[in-house]
Amino acid sequence: MTTPLKILGLCGSLRQGSYNQAVLRVAQELAPAAGLSIESADIADMPLYNEDVYAQGFPPPVERLREQIRAADGLLFVTPEYNYSIPGVLKNAIDWVSRPPEQPFAGKPAAVMGASPSTLGTARAQYHLRQSLVCLDVHFLNAPEVMIASAHTRFDAQGRLTHEPTREIIGKLLEALAAWTRRLKPA
Amino acid sequence: MTTPLKILGLCGSLRQGSYNQAVLRVAQELAPAAGLSIESADIADMPLYNEDVYAQGFPPPVERLREQIRAADGLLFVTPEYNYSIPGVLKNAIDWVSRPPEQPFAGKPAAVMGASPSTLGTARAQYHLRQSLVCLDVHFLNAPEVMIASAHTRFDAQGRLTHEPTREIIGKLLEALAAWTRRLKPA
Amino acid sequence: MTTPLKILGLCGSLRQGSYNQAVLRVAQELAPAAGLSIESADIADMPLYNEDVYAQGFPPPVERLREQIRAADGLLFVTPEYNYSIPGVLKNAIDWVSRPPEQPFAGKPAAVMGASPSTLGTARAQYHLRQSLVCLDVHFLNAPEVMIASAHTRFDAQGRLTHEPTREIIGKLLEALAAWTRRLKPA
Amino acid sequence: MTTPLKILGLCGSLRQGSYNQAVLRVAQELAPAAGLSIESADIADMPLYNEDVYAQGFPPPVERLREQIRAADGLLFVTPEYNYSIPGVLKNAIDWVSRPPEQPFAGKPAAVMGASPSTLGTARAQYHLRQSLVCLDVHFLNAPEVMIASAHTRFDAQGRLTHEPTREIIGKLLEALAAWTRRLKPA
Repeated sequence: MTTPLKILGLCGSLRQGSYNQAVLRVAQELAPAAGLSIESADIADMPLYNEDVYAQGFPPPVERLREQIRAADGLLFVTPEYNYSIPGVLKNAIDWVSRPPEQPFAGKPAAVMGASPSTLGTARAQYHLRQSLVCLDVHFLNAPEVMIASAHTRFDAQGRLTHEPTREIIGKLLEALAAWTRRLKPA
Repeated sequence: MTTPLKILGLCGSLRQGSYNQAVLRVAQELAPAAGLSIESADIADMPLYNEDVYAQGFPPPVERLREQIRAADGLLFVTPEYNYSIPGVLKNAIDWVSRPPEQPFAGKPAAVMGASPSTLGTARAQYHLRQSLVCLDVHFLNAPEVMIASAHTRFDAQGRLTHEPTREIIGKLLEALAAWTRRLKPA
Repeated sequence: MTTPLKILGLCGSLRQGSYNQAVLRVAQELAPAAGLSIESADIADMPLYNEDVYAQGFPPPVERLREQIRAADGLLFVTPEYNYSIPGVLKNAIDWVSRPPEQPFAGKPAAVMGASPSTLGTARAQYHLRQSLVCLDVHFLNAPEVMIASAHTRFDAQGRLTHEPTREIIGKLLEALAAWTRRLKPA
Repeated sequence: MTTPLKILGLCGSLRQGSYNQAVLRVAQELAPAAGLSIESADIADMPLYNEDVYAQGFPPPVERLREQIRAADGLLFVTPEYNYSIPGVLKNAIDWVSRPPEQPFAGKPAAVMGASPSTLGTARAQYHLRQSLVCLDVHFLNAPEVMIASAHTRFDAQGRLTHEPTREIIGKLLEALAAWTRRLKPA
């Protein structure tokens, strides 16, 4: 038995009944089978990024997230799409965390998923996120791409995923992330 | 003498000494010569977007911004670039404002500028913003594109713009925005 | 009876049985009801863009396309998506046409549609095209966005569109393009 | 002495005196010091992509390029920016090469550079290329990003690079590509 790889999950939605939070919980359930352990980050109490505040030091929720990223072997973004891009809430967390002296995202392997009621399933958000994380030297997995369209038809009233093909593709993404993380791991 | 067109300026930086706030102030000074009057929106006190909060109604800072957008003939975005995209702070304000019942950005003419210490002068942020605002039916001006690179060399220690060609291109952008706003104005 | 507005259709696929060519033919059929007349451009005989060739003058297929664009009141792009972007074939035609002295796209209103077997229906290609045409000062319609997913299920074996909601959204796009073109028309 | 890694260079410009061809030649000169050997692909004689032609089999220039990609340990794209994206000529080559049965780009490490007379130095083209190659499962290096702006000031009349910092950053990119290629190499 090998120790599971530590993955930090970052969800772009703060809503209680969020489809994306539900997708992240599914990923947490499926993680052990892929040799992963997924912790969920909390970005609900981040202040708005302001360089004058940053000059005083990282606020505690930012420092905590920076620690979590540093400690992770890899990252799993699970994001809705707002206005054809990632939520401001998720971008704000990234903007805080990325500031010097030391940039905790650097060199981390990562994967991205998203769920949306639309037919595009967060595609536009995912490519914007990929571009932002080139800046931060994150190594994104290319495939599979998990874009969960028409999300309102795939979950029941309790927010549980009822669409088995979606569960399967999430499992495949986790396996691919595990392999990618091991491949990139410093010797 | 015609009444100036009302433009709402939205700046993506909350920093006191922000180059982008300084660029917006320059635009406000130059506005009358272009037949414009520019008000500056304040997005510093927006909460993080959360659909559960939205379900209770728009918080006051959001309602205020929605009113300002509704009242404006056009929009002027002035944005830094963080991590190859627009700041989470600006995206968060857009995410709030865009929610139903009525979407105040719809049909508005707009222009975008940005200043950055980098050599790219916020180019990446500007194209992400343009994509987001397709969603919100904003009609962006195509040219001139104002991407103020190496911003630290173009302002003095008091944050005043000292680079005359930059002042001129800002003036040209305002003239183009005025013409574009008049061209699109409902009869 | 007013004279129909002249729209030039540019299709990114050269395949005989192309879904996108079929979509353009549907648009041509529906055009009169929207007050439009749509001519289809032929980009199959363009050479590969080479600045050394351009230095000798525009090749005849390029000169012809430049003339067609100049003569049009507006543009209708109908494009497949290849490798998450627009086809090289369409981009090559744009690259040729855009060269000085005079840039025929400047100021033209335009709309975009696309059909694809994938679930994303050419979304990624459409946003890349929108960015390229900011450069060329094309004024794109924001909505409706026509992204015809799972195209293989919406056409019969003879390449005829059998999916009525798709025909309707194409009709709506043409009406919106007509209104946008009249709104932007120089007085 | 280890055998140099084999890198295939793909240049998006067909012009004889192209800055990007010159940049690729500089990379070829600097390659041995980084443990690389760079072959330059020729895409000047590709036909325009047409699925009806593809149905007859790959034309010889496409088959040749597919072979070169298969044989390479990694890829080096050197591209100008046309109309805020990659040249149609380069995209057309990618569109041809990517077709089934077997996709030769899959899993290859890659880097991108570009030179342009503009101040943005091909930034917009590079991000479009990165998005297209997510589709083809290419693993792009994140840094350094080599965007050679104001290219006309960095080369002499004979097309030789005279700007030493540019030569240095090209060398650093090659070293990073070598390390990235070794890191991703199947055991």
